[in-house]
Formats: sequence, C-alpha cells, structure tokens
Amino acid sequence: MSADIAEQPAGFARLLDDRNSGAIAQVAAEIARRKPRNVVFVARGTSDHAALYGAYLSEIRLGLPVASASPSAITLYGAKPDFTGSLVIGVSQSGGSADLTGVLGVARENGALTLAVTNNPESPLARAAELSIDVAAGHERAVAATKTYTAELLALLLLVEGVRAGDGRLPAAERAAIEELPRLAEAALADSSAEDLAQRYRFASSLVTTGRGYAYPTAREAALKLMETSYLPALAFSGADLLHGPLAMADPDVPVLAVVGDGPGGRAMRDVVTRLGERRADVVTIGAADVPGASARLAVPAVDERYSPLLDILPLQKLALALALARGEDPDAPRGLKKVTTTL
Amino acid sequence: MSADIAEQPAGFARLLDDRNSGAIAQVAAEIARRKPRNVVFVARGTSDHAALYGAYLSEIRLGLPVASASPSAITLYGAKPDFTGSLVIGVSQSGGSADLTGVLGVARENGALTLAVTNNPESPLARAAELSIDVAAGHERAVAATKTYTAELLALLLLVEGVRAGDGRLPAAERAAIEELPRLAEAALADSSAEDLAQRYRFASSLVTTGRGYAYPTAREAALKLMETSYLPALAFSGADLLHGPLAMADPDVPVLAVVGDGPGGRAMRDVVTRLGERRADVVTIGAADVPGASARLAVPAVDERYSPLLDILPLQKLALALALARGEDPDAPRGLKKVTTTL
Repeated sequence: MSADIAEQPAGFARLLDDRNSGAIAQVAAEIARRKPRNVVFVARGTSDHAALYGAYLSEIRLGLPVASASPSAITLYGAKPDFTGSLVIGVSQSGGSADLTGVLGVARENGALTLAVTNNPESPLARAAELSIDVAAGHERAVAATKTYTAELLALLLLVEGVRAGDGRLPAAERAAIEELPRLAEAALADSSAEDLAQRYRFASSLVTTGRGYAYPTAREAALKLMETSYLPALAFSGADLLHGPLAMADPDVPVLAVVGDGPGGRAMRDVVTRLGERRADVVTIGAADVPGASARLAVPAVDERYSPLLDILPLQKLALALALARGEDPDAPRGLKKVTTTL
Repeated sequence: MSADIAEQPAGFARLLDDRNSGAIAQVAAEIARRKPRNVVFVARGTSDHAALYGAYLSEIRLGLPVASASPSAITLYGAKPDFTGSLVIGVSQSGGSADLTGVLGVARENGALTLAVTNNPESPLARAAELSIDVAAGHERAVAATKTYTAELLALLLLVEGVRAGDGRLPAAERAAIEELPRLAEAALADSSAEDLAQRYRFASSLVTTGRGYAYPTAREAALKLMETSYLPALAFSGADLLHGPLAMADPDVPVLAVVGDGPGGRAMRDVVTRLGERRADVVTIGAADVPGASARLAVPAVDERYSPLLDILPLQKLALALALARGEDPDAPRGLKKVTTTL
C-alpha cells in the first residue's frame, strides 16, 4: 500500500503523457460530437467516489444533469430505462464487476453512449462499452485502492475538460495547471503530518469525515480507506447533510476530519466547522485553507478547488496506512476483502 | 417521538382518503401528460432517503433514468444544467431549506417541470415549484422525523403508480394492496421485539445497517435515526457496497442490522448475510424473510417488496427510540439539532 501511494505522482505524469492523454482527448472529442443530454455514472466502492467527482465536474463544467444509476434496479428488478441521449460511464479499477458490466450492456441496448473508465482495457467492462479509457495506473498491489483512485480522478478531469473544449484538446492555461499536479502531489506526499496524526487516533472508536462540493468525494474516500485498513467505523457526510441529524453524534470523543478547500465548497464548510466547535468536537482539517477552530491541519498545496480532490486524498491515504500500522493491523491484507469484488 | 411513531397508520389512512389521494392523482396525471424524460430528486437528511425510494420506483416502475442533483453544484458553484424534459422533485418535510428551494428555482428557469413534496403546502419550497404535493402528516413534534418520512414514502408511491397508470388513478389491485398498508402498519407497530432488541445494543459502540434495492433506503434511514437519537455511529451500506471494502470492519463486536425482504433485493442480500456470518458478525434481520445465520429478526408483515419500505422502517424507528431511552438519552431533544435545518 505504501508503494502504491508513493507511485501516484508518477502515475499522474504517465496519464498526462501524449499517448495516454491523447487517447482520452479522442474519446472526449467523440463524446462532444455526440452531444449527450445527461450523464449517468455506475460504480462501486472507491470507484464510486471517483464517479462522484466526475458527477460534480459534469454538472459544473458541462452543465449536464447527472444521474447515478442503481445497478440493482436494472440487475435485480429488470428495469429497462430509456437511455436515449445519455452518456453512461462505468468506473471500475478492475473492470470485472458483473453488475456494472450488465448495466452498461442494458444501457447500450437502450440507446446510451457507453464509456468504461478502468485500469484494465481488456476487462469485461471495457469490452461491453462502446468507448473506453485506460487510466494506466499500473498493477496495484494492495487490496485498498489508492493509485487507481487518483488515476480515475485525473482521467475524468481530462475527459470532462476535453468535452468542454469540444475537440478534446485542453486550453493552454488549463493544461498548464493540470501539468503542475505531479509535482504538487510529490510535495503533498513529502509532508509527514499524517504519520504524526495517526497517533492521535490510535484509540478512537469511530470517526467522522466531511466535505462539501468537490471535497465531498474526498471525505467519502477517506472514510472508506479508514474502514478498509484500520477497521475503524468512519462516517462520511456532506457538510450540509451533517447538519441534518448526524451533528447530534458529534462530541469530544468523535474525531472529525473536515476537508476544507479554498473555494466555494471550502467557504460553505466554515460554518460547519463552527457548528462542530460549538459541540466541542475535535476537528482536524485537510486542505489548503487555514480554518479557525480546528485543532490541527493536514496541509495540502493550494490549487483551484476543482483540482484539489487529486491532492487532498494523498495525506488521508497516508493517514489510513499509518493508523492501520499503529493499531497493529496489516494494511496490505485487510481481513475479509478481495481485490476484485463480485456482486450481482 | 413515541406519539409521532404511533400516528403513522392513521397518517397512511389520511393520505389515502379521497381528498388527499385525489390531489396526488391530479399531479400524477399532469406529469404523465408532460412526459418527462428523466427525474431529478433534491433532498437532504431523512427526506433524501424518501427520495431514494422515489428513485427506485421511477427507474423500475416508470423506466425513467433518475438523477440526484448535488445542490452545491448549483448553489455554491453556480452550475446551470439544462433541465429540459426533466421532472425535478424536491422532497422536504418543512419545505424550508433555502438550498433546495434555490435548486428548484434554477431548475424551473432552465426548463424543468418542478414538484415539491412537503408536509407544508405554504412553504417556500412548495411556492417555488410548479406542482406541489402535501403529505398531510400533521404536526411532527419530535426533531427526529418519523411520520413525515413514511408519509413522503406513501405520497411518492401513489405519485409514481399514478404516473404509470397515466390518468393518476391506480389499477384496482394496486389500490387494494396499498389500502392494506394502514392495517399492516398497525400490526408491525404492535410487535414489541424492537424494545427487547434495544437491550442488546445498550453498550454497542457502533453499528452497521445494510439492504439492497428497495430495502436500501430503509437501511439508510435506520442508521440516521440511530445517530440522531442514540448518538451511535451507524454506517449504512448497500449490500453490494458492503462487500467492496467495509466488510473488513465487520467483526463480532460490530452489530449489523440487515433489511432482507422477500423479493429480488432480499434474495441478493442472502449472500451478504452469509459473508457477514463468515466474519462472525452479529446479524439481526428486519423484514418478512427468515434468513439462515441471523441471530434475531424483527418480523414485519409480508408484502410486495415495493411496499416494504413503508413497513420495515417502523420497528427500526421503535428500536432507535428504545435504544435512546436505554442509553439515558432524550430522543425528543437530540443535542445539537433543530427541526428546520438551514444550509446554503
């Protein structure tokens, strides 16, 4: 898991090379030509958090309504929604989930333009889809996905910005900002605050993560990593949903990890951090912003909030790894899990 | 909270009377006439779980793709998705959330047919929408929503079946089955197993809930009730997502509440219960089905899986109430919460 985490800056650089980013640009140009009216994501687990990032990008950058198909509606209850005009995107590191492949198959038969985003271009999911993107993250050794997650994020960012551009080719300023990400990821990983923070949670019995807007997928993915490797019940909430009920749970014994960026989502989170402070919760923030009332911060280089999910997750992956080790667990072999999960 | 819970059978009967169900039938007929191409739900907290039920119904019974709009994409990042051909449904017991009202306003300006489903027909949300449904649950005293949740479920069921019928009027067999629900809800509430089960979780430090298909909203809502009233970290997973990571967390000290109905969703859950058993998790099932390997069951009258969310939640609401009392908490005044939550 440690090696997978460390490879992420190189993975970003590889996905940005001419061959890989050129392939994504071609897919983006084809999608732009077909003018989808809406986007439907299907994914599970970690890849579902990447899909959530893709959903925010599609709504905000492309102005397209986004649906999140329930595989069970199609695979268990036999629903056959009319997908005319829809772009249906399956996201899966292995591309091996039978239920996602089934949904893409049904969607394609019912009028959708289908796209697979996977780390295995020879997978059943990639073969079931009309279009396919290889996130080129290389072989992931640990069961807990890290480098495939951030590779999916970057692939979806390049895709959406390519569709926005129309011909798949990013405007020069956008391209330059994205090309900074390998270097910034290296800087984020060099910081050792996450290892220190792990000591703080050695005896925590549960944990809450939260974020809004672009930061919400990071909160969700951080909670999953903590559950997978440290077996710590970790609850993820959007900052808005947290105020609708779960806030009652916050007390000094429930630590909160709040992803607070430097844009609109981050600004909306400040009120949430204040409300948590009133309940004397222990809040640690992740991100570029310095937030009053937080007891510590995992600092991450400042970037446009749209790019921050690619960086903010890095110290949180390191935290999950360090906490698992501090608690005497084996993060490379989480109990009860397999690398490819089969669901119907 | 106890009184609100007890009023649900009467609330079902009231919503089914000619005046209230007739008003829903008119809205359904108008929606059928306008032929939306997809449905977008916007909701928060408990109402978001009712919306999730509405999403399954729309996909399975109407064959319409369903989107779940991120209010923050619109309210924080200023996204203006093209909603032409979309039916946008805001679900909120108070109808007072500024962010949902903002989303419905933007959707209406951008081509959507808008509908508010609320317990307050004079609310800002109801006024912002072109169409409105009153769930007629009466004044809810407790902060934790119970009777407004099931009223929202029944209203959405009547709406979707009315749209399916085309003229808003349900086929006789459907109508007869739904008219059984007040009596069946009475029977479900008469059972005292939930009070007994509360003793079992007196010292639990966290809890997992799970379900698939139509049962997934029940799992989500049960987790929220337990968090709101007993301050117990409760994690809800679809049965499929549970196998993608969080399963590692399951051990004999983490109790699992599994909603297992008698249809396709319930059958898919049996494998999940088996996998949890292999990890020696303590599984209690909720529903009409008897599942091998479970250590206890909250029995609920057998109905078509499509109606089961209206019944399965009832013993779980009673469990949340009884557990809060057993832990010395005041379920009528959860710390840190207000009845109307304002988010931007």
